[in-house]
Amino acid sequence: MPVSKRMSTIPPSPIRKLVPFSDAAKKRGIKVYHINIGQPDVPTPPEAFEAMRRFDEKVLSYAPSNGIPQLRHAMAGYFKGIGYDIAEKNIMVTNGGSEAIYFAFMISLDTGDEVLIPEPYYANYNGFAKMAGVKIKPLTTKVENGFHLPSEEEIKRSMTDKTRAILICSPNNPTGTVHTREDMEKVFRLADEYDLTVIGDEVYNEFVYDNREYVSVMHFPDQARRVILIDSVSKRYSACGARIGAMITKNTDFIDAAMVLAQARLCPPTIDQVMAVAMYEVKNDYLKEARLEYKKRRDVVFEELGHIEGVTFHKPAGAFYTVVKLPVEDAEDFARWLLESFSYKNETVMVSPASGFYGTPGKGTDEIRIAYVLKEEDMKRSIQLLGLALEKYRNR
Amino acid sequence: MPVSKRMSTIPPSPIRKLVPFSDAAKKRGIKVYHINIGQPDVPTPPEAFEAMRRFDEKVLSYAPSNGIPQLRHAMAGYFKGIGYDIAEKNIMVTNGGSEAIYFAFMISLDTGDEVLIPEPYYANYNGFAKMAGVKIKPLTTKVENGFHLPSEEEIKRSMTDKTRAILICSPNNPTGTVHTREDMEKVFRLADEYDLTVIGDEVYNEFVYDNREYVSVMHFPDQARRVILIDSVSKRYSACGARIGAMITKNTDFIDAAMVLAQARLCPPTIDQVMAVAMYEVKNDYLKEARLEYKKRRDVVFEELGHIEGVTFHKPAGAFYTVVKLPVEDAEDFARWLLESFSYKNETVMVSPASGFYGTPGKGTDEIRIAYVLKEEDMKRSIQLLGLALEKYRNR
Repeated sequence: MPVSKRMSTIPPSPIRKLVPFSDAAKKRGIKVYHINIGQPDVPTPPEAFEAMRRFDEKVLSYAPSNGIPQLRHAMAGYFKGIGYDIAEKNIMVTNGGSEAIYFAFMISLDTGDEVLIPEPYYANYNGFAKMAGVKIKPLTTKVENGFHLPSEEEIKRSMTDKTRAILICSPNNPTGTVHTREDMEKVFRLADEYDLTVIGDEVYNEFVYDNREYVSVMHFPDQARRVILIDSVSKRYSACGARIGAMITKNTDFIDAAMVLAQARLCPPTIDQVMAVAMYEVKNDYLKEARLEYKKRRDVVFEELGHIEGVTFHKPAGAFYTVVKLPVEDAEDFARWLLESFSYKNETVMVSPASGFYGTPGKGTDEIRIAYVLKEEDMKRSIQLLGLALEKYRNR
Repeated sequence: MPVSKRMSTIPPSPIRKLVPFSDAAKKRGIKVYHINIGQPDVPTPPEAFEAMRRFDEKVLSYAPSNGIPQLRHAMAGYFKGIGYDIAEKNIMVTNGGSEAIYFAFMISLDTGDEVLIPEPYYANYNGFAKMAGVKIKPLTTKVENGFHLPSEEEIKRSMTDKTRAILICSPNNPTGTVHTREDMEKVFRLADEYDLTVIGDEVYNEFVYDNREYVSVMHFPDQARRVILIDSVSKRYSACGARIGAMITKNTDFIDAAMVLAQARLCPPTIDQVMAVAMYEVKNDYLKEARLEYKKRRDVVFEELGHIEGVTFHKPAGAFYTVVKLPVEDAEDFARWLLESFSYKNETVMVSPASGFYGTPGKGTDEIRIAYVLKEEDMKRSIQLLGLALEKYRNR
């Protein structure tokens, strides 16, 4: 039986396709530092596990399709705490931020419509765009410019009469860039002029360093009807396995349309929602400590990259990723070589080739994404291994 | 901001759209018996909650996209126990049976392709078909015929050159029909002749009564390359809120294609998978007792329906649903009237109008679906209330 033709056009996750090679390296007894995937090692708030253990229903039953009221209440409370005016009815709880993005595409775009997204971008957007039958128009950003937005004129050149939305991920995965007020005002000026939906993927909002000003899509209340905010517990509370996120909008038509999709898949997992209540209500110290921890890692990555010859990088102001340009022709070949042919004192490092984060063919072939999700000394070691490997790779 | 045009064409869940009226009835102090939704009251295996409490990781991390190995192992073991030859690599763990159906549509059908489904059918198939851009061609079945399949000639008349798959739900939601060997052989004869994928939604497989022979899509091993089995913990283990299911197939191309979709949404929830391991490994007595419990409820529903004048019904051989033809013109109006205008000793009953389970417009308008998910005495009371209400409704 042949598979459907459309499935041959969804690219596999670039983050996961090197996994067989890292498995093989581990089988050879080599320690692999994983800076390729955004799986943090920061503990999940213990309050979440306590809530899980307290769960004492006899029947594990369906939750409401838009999420349990306690969770929507806790989410609204969290957002109130950071100054966003969001009510419980504005919140649709989803299966991770992943499903929230898919819902946002489905409800704001028709088949064949286009969404502008600065590239490099989170590679899974490709899968959701394909599932929703919409087209991503990439807006190329560059490491030399700190991955900030192109000019208004350049963005307009990427637009067609099918352009209906723009998605801004800030702090950005994979670049770590925090979009400035100027960037965000540009986005909303264009959105206003061309009547675009603005999708804000802000799941890293708590990870902004150096007291940098953070400008959210929620900071433009007069444009609220065109705004969809994507949220998730995965990174903020180091709870990737809970698969709890949210699609948030003050546009009630959007919420009503998303409800139809939500009802088809019944509900997000019940116990994980109970755990998420405890996460959104966690004391502020948890987030502050996590932020400080990631900042230390960011600093050590930035410092160690400075010791490697020939790499081009910027200082990421947020999230826990950065994209680095390497002095190699084919970063994917290098990433595979790291796992297949390199080791130093029986250790190596696994990185993500950045080309999978670009929508424009041929872009990013000499770049990698680094996720600084390991503790300080492991991050230091990882970047040192990267430097040693680069030297050996170029002289091989 | 307007929502996308396509979202206006996905019908809302017929099971859930009466909810505001039942909420209002409850606010007036009326007890509402819910035989409208398949939310069982049978306890989830306690072993599942024990596994949950034993979970002691510090970080709630991502699971593999195709599910944790222990769960695929437990699933394969369960299926081995009922005589199906399924390996771990044939299993893709999904977010409930819901996602498994969506994946099956996406990987076996292209946009515009058609899938044959006997109607009445599980209404959420409509949502998944819409999301996947495929068309459902309903094969009408009738209560008078126990909702068994139409003749081969009739099925062929529903086929076009776009027909690529057939979905059989057995035991059936919403009819309770268990498809016979003759039904299943007909399906595979047609599938072989027209090269169709056969999707078997068999999440109610353990609920077959009266020692009826059960014929699964897995009982046709020479056709394995065209078979996709849908499984779920929701009903079998009374764990609807876990959102754990599986898409199972021996066709490795199908598994590889589904993996691309699975990677985009990262993974099903981690803790719920750990709980599901305990469910699939549960001792057989749990399932036997659940089956006996549902059989008792089925029997009381069947007996009480026999006391109501003018209804047409059959004896469902499986699952925990049945579709009943009422002596009313508009079952949806009646269902709403039950909640808005009827009560007896301060009690009423909530049913699902069956028209939402039909793909053919105008079909099933005088039918309802009953879910026998409440304990024996509550089911008896519910059907008695239905009888009293029908009498009052017809004489109003």
